[in-house]
Amino acid sequence: MKPNFSLRLRVFNLNCWGIPYLSKHRCDRMKRLGDFLNMESFDLALLEEVWSEQDFQFLRQKLSFSYPDAHYFRSGIIGSGLCVFSKHPIQEIIQHVYTLNGYPYMIHHGDWFCGKAVGLLVFHLSGLVLNAYITHLHAEYSRQKDIYLAHRVAQAWELAQFIHHTSKKADVVLLCGDLNMHPKDLGCCLLKEWTGLHDAYLETQDFKGFEEGYTMVPENYYVSQQDLGPFPSGIRIDYVLYKAVSGFYISCKTLKSTTGHGPYNGTPLSDHEALMATLCVRHSPLQQNPSFVHGPAGRLPLISVLREAWTELGLGIAQARWWAAFAGNVIGVGLLLLVLLCVLAAEEGAREVAILLWTPNVGLVLGAGAVYLFHMQEAKGLCRVQTELQHVLGRESEAQDLSSEAQLALLLGQDGRQS
Amino acid sequence: MKPNFSLRLRVFNLNCWGIPYLSKHRCDRMKRLGDFLNMESFDLALLEEVWSEQDFQFLRQKLSFSYPDAHYFRSGIIGSGLCVFSKHPIQEIIQHVYTLNGYPYMIHHGDWFCGKAVGLLVFHLSGLVLNAYITHLHAEYSRQKDIYLAHRVAQAWELAQFIHHTSKKADVVLLCGDLNMHPKDLGCCLLKEWTGLHDAYLETQDFKGFEEGYTMVPENYYVSQQDLGPFPSGIRIDYVLYKAVSGFYISCKTLKSTTGHGPYNGTPLSDHEALMATLCVRHSPLQQNPSFVHGPAGRLPLISVLREAWTELGLGIAQARWWAAFAGNVIGVGLLLLVLLCVLAAEEGAREVAILLWTPNVGLVLGAGAVYLFHMQEAKGLCRVQTELQHVLGRESEAQDLSSEAQLALLLGQDGRQS
Repeated sequence: MKPNFSLRLRVFNLNCWGIPYLSKHRCDRMKRLGDFLNMESFDLALLEEVWSEQDFQFLRQKLSFSYPDAHYFRSGIIGSGLCVFSKHPIQEIIQHVYTLNGYPYMIHHGDWFCGKAVGLLVFHLSGLVLNAYITHLHAEYSRQKDIYLAHRVAQAWELAQFIHHTSKKADVVLLCGDLNMHPKDLGCCLLKEWTGLHDAYLETQDFKGFEEGYTMVPENYYVSQQDLGPFPSGIRIDYVLYKAVSGFYISCKTLKSTTGHGPYNGTPLSDHEALMATLCVRHSPLQQNPSFVHGPAGRLPLISVLREAWTELGLGIAQARWWAAFAGNVIGVGLLLLVLLCVLAAEEGAREVAILLWTPNVGLVLGAGAVYLFHMQEAKGLCRVQTELQHVLGRESEAQDLSSEAQLALLLGQDGRQS
Repeated sequence: MKPNFSLRLRVFNLNCWGIPYLSKHRCDRMKRLGDFLNMESFDLALLEEVWSEQDFQFLRQKLSFSYPDAHYFRSGIIGSGLCVFSKHPIQEIIQHVYTLNGYPYMIHHGDWFCGKAVGLLVFHLSGLVLNAYITHLHAEYSRQKDIYLAHRVAQAWELAQFIHHTSKKADVVLLCGDLNMHPKDLGCCLLKEWTGLHDAYLETQDFKGFEEGYTMVPENYYVSQQDLGPFPSGIRIDYVLYKAVSGFYISCKTLKSTTGHGPYNGTPLSDHEALMATLCVRHSPLQQNPSFVHGPAGRLPLISVLREAWTELGLGIAQARWWAAFAGNVIGVGLLLLVLLCVLAAEEGAREVAILLWTPNVGLVLGAGAVYLFHMQEAKGLCRVQTELQHVLGRESEAQDLSSEAQLALLLGQDGRQS
């Protein structure tokens, strides 16, 4: 590769809010999105919440000239909602479905039915390997009482691990998506600390959009104050993150977001704001892998966030076990009731009532059994993530100790020479 | 690394058949397994079907001196059953749970409840990066009417993809486990063709064990003829597979399996035979990555197996959609019956019967709803794998065409020079 090698990447990201029958003006918005993407001709357009495969097929057809390659990540019962349109040929595809993703009985939230996932597309651009990841994590329905926090932290860890292990030979890593986390939230810090990804909004010198980079704002026609909860001026939950792994340097030249309207004014394309980034990749033989430049001080934020996540998962495990125990008790009471009903049915007096109550009681036992199994599985999944965190914590602490010792030896050596 | 670098790896693999309360002599077998592993001091001991975490903890304690590092892969409701004991420190851990793994209503088969998975452990040995994978795929309960075939093929593809994408910077890749597939089965061929892994049994010059390398044999006290089905002399479903990715050469010096008895005779350690391999890794600067030495002819087996898998998944999708449609019809009939029962309840004559039948009918509708959702998710999961296969097929066919054209141009060029 030439030393003056340089590559410009124009990237588009949008959570499309494409729920069939429920999202307002969906078809019109999809049409206008297609027109805009055709007009702008980005290198990559990464979309979330395209819940209907018909919408994807519509866009695929509409964009077939400007974006010859495309992929829809199928998952769960409804689908992951993730899809990508690309100007460049997609070389490889893989996806990972998060093992924890809410509760099936929270039907009105629906996340469990989507099979939230992370998708990876590998591109070869001018001899450079680009790993582009797209994801959408579990929604936060209440900031004050977030029952999904442990699941979202676990998802952030699975995402970070997936990126860490699948990008080892990539030159450039790009992650776009709706993380459903504010920039300083635990899961967001965990993701950035473990992968070394940089936030385009924080890195760029040229940002055009809302203050604080908000991607969900009250100015948007489709957003209600209720959606924003305790953040009336807006929240930032959609991201463009990137890093260069080795021998390359990547920077964000410009980042632009829509401001509550469509890209050319008019009604917005979605209830989220779109992000448009221009990234520049340059050859940089001296650029080191950021994960290897951790000194003892550099390791501290990672160790601290790992510890915090470990504690949060511990609370999630306790909660999951409580629910499993509760369901276990319901099963016990239900079985006792069944025995009682059998006794009553044998007698003349209450036979009819006993027979009438028999089936609902069997339903109760079966339902409680399903809840018990679900929360046992939840506890196991959270324990698994906690064990992985524990392992990394152990190794990072060891490395920090070694690093501190080496630094101390170096200082002592210098002192010795000076004295 | 020195040019005469050489590393010897002694590896042990066993499906332990450790089902609490059901597997015969479990505690005694675990104790003897621990004694044997301590005595032999392998570099790595990879175990499947350690279903009880207590058994893992027992072994961990027993082996703490010879194998200072260990990991249990938690998953699903019961657990993946996978664990690893290692003489060398484990650097990194990740696991991937297969998205398709049988049916929850097939309770007597139980695979769905285990959350079958693949685990990856990364080791740094004398400056070499070793990725050790362990897995256990869905069991085959009937060779003649294998209702899990599509799921097992999908699992084999997910396993192959996971290895392909996470081992790009590894020097050596090792996969051990119970694949529940015979050597020439579709999934096994797909795995080997896509990852380039070699089968220790086929590669070694020094094999000691049963003919054909059988790992489940009638000579084993715990194996019945029923377990072996149409293969009375035995089956080979447990494997040690490996490859060197770049700059290294790996070979299997010896492979030994137990022969229906314990390693020192006596009752066997499990219903499966244990595999013990001695692998040798050498420096080999000329060794190329096998995935890049595919000529047009070298690609043909991969293309052929991808096509076969694509077809098999198509059958699985049709089956899943049939079940979803069937459940959909049951829901329809159930809802009609509910309306009918409401009408009957309003009348005097059959009120009691109508009330009595109401709850079971609601149960029927809910049950059919769950079956419908499960098979919709199954169809989506199989479609997703099929799309991935389709993508690889497209790229491989393109590469083959290009390669054939280049070869033709070369031949024409040679002809031109000769004429």
